[in-house]
Amino acid sequence: MRKMTFLLVAAVATAGVVAFTAPTTGSAEQEAAPVYRIKIFPGYRDWKLISVAHEAGNLNDLRAVLGNDIAVKAYREGKLPFPDGAVIARLSWEYVPSEENNKVFGREQSFVAGPQPEWYLQFMVKDSRKYAASGGWGYAQFDKNGKPANEAKHNTCFPCHVPIKDRDYVFTQYAP
Amino acid sequence: MRKMTFLLVAAVATAGVVAFTAPTTGSAEQEAAPVYRIKIFPGYRDWKLISVAHEAGNLNDLRAVLGNDIAVKAYREGKLPFPDGAVIARLSWEYVPSEENNKVFGREQSFVAGPQPEWYLQFMVKDSRKYAASGGWGYAQFDKNGKPANEAKHNTCFPCHVPIKDRDYVFTQYAP
Repeated sequence: MRKMTFLLVAAVATAGVVAFTAPTTGSAEQEAAPVYRIKIFPGYRDWKLISVAHEAGNLNDLRAVLGNDIAVKAYREGKLPFPDGAVIARLSWEYVPSEENNKVFGREQSFVAGPQPEWYLQFMVKDSRKYAASGGWGYAQFDKNGKPANEAKHNTCFPCHVPIKDRDYVFTQYAP
Repeated sequence: MRKMTFLLVAAVATAGVVAFTAPTTGSAEQEAAPVYRIKIFPGYRDWKLISVAHEAGNLNDLRAVLGNDIAVKAYREGKLPFPDGAVIARLSWEYVPSEENNKVFGREQSFVAGPQPEWYLQFMVKDSRKYAASGGWGYAQFDKNGKPANEAKHNTCFPCHVPIKDRDYVFTQYAP
């Protein structure tokens, strides 16, 4: 009984850690997203900053776009198309007013990153052969628990990026 | 004459590179900001992301807060006060609508990072002995050309951070 209790506690503790770290670090058990078969990239939260944005309207998020070293190097050198191996990550957070900051500033002006919204995480992965049919990019979207979006949702990615073909299908520009 | 022309071109080219990279990489000639005597930290643009924000009102910027490894580790471990050596950088860009994105989305919803505003860059540097008189933090502000703000402006930093003493004087919280 004592042993069972220990195992249960260990299992709960492990599950808790996985739930907390899965979207941040990825894991071997990470489910690949449909269509492009992309998994969450381990360590993406440590990647370098490309830019930031605010999507108002229904999304109403603050977002950061990060890149792996290949992507960031290409951005900084103004190199298009992006080389194979480039990966761009889009993270987002709810757009929330900061009462704390506003109190100090004496004005209602400060909006900060709140909790992760349902669709917290996206990736674009450059592989000109593997993803030749979609402009050389694979797309993936994950919710805040690390679960991929469904196939229908993934099929909407590429068509939306087509108007930006001149910049190799990438919306975000590097923040100087 | 030919040699002089070459030297002139070389000088102009060098100046151009310095102007472009000075706020990004720092340099040996970088002028220290008054009061706390802080220079721009080389490589800060490569640091990890802490969070993002939108300051509306007169500032009207999108901002990213980055940290060196000591700062980010402390944030992730929820460690307060921050250890000596922690450095936090605040970068900002003009908050501008993206006509390009809005056209694709079919809605006026997208705001992105525009040019660097006048006061592009700030640092907080933890050194509990050196900066004992200001809560253990030194403060620095630089314009988009890497020129430090004046002494009067630097004297306004610490008083504004005092209300956040409970979080070791740091406004920004880590974006999950």
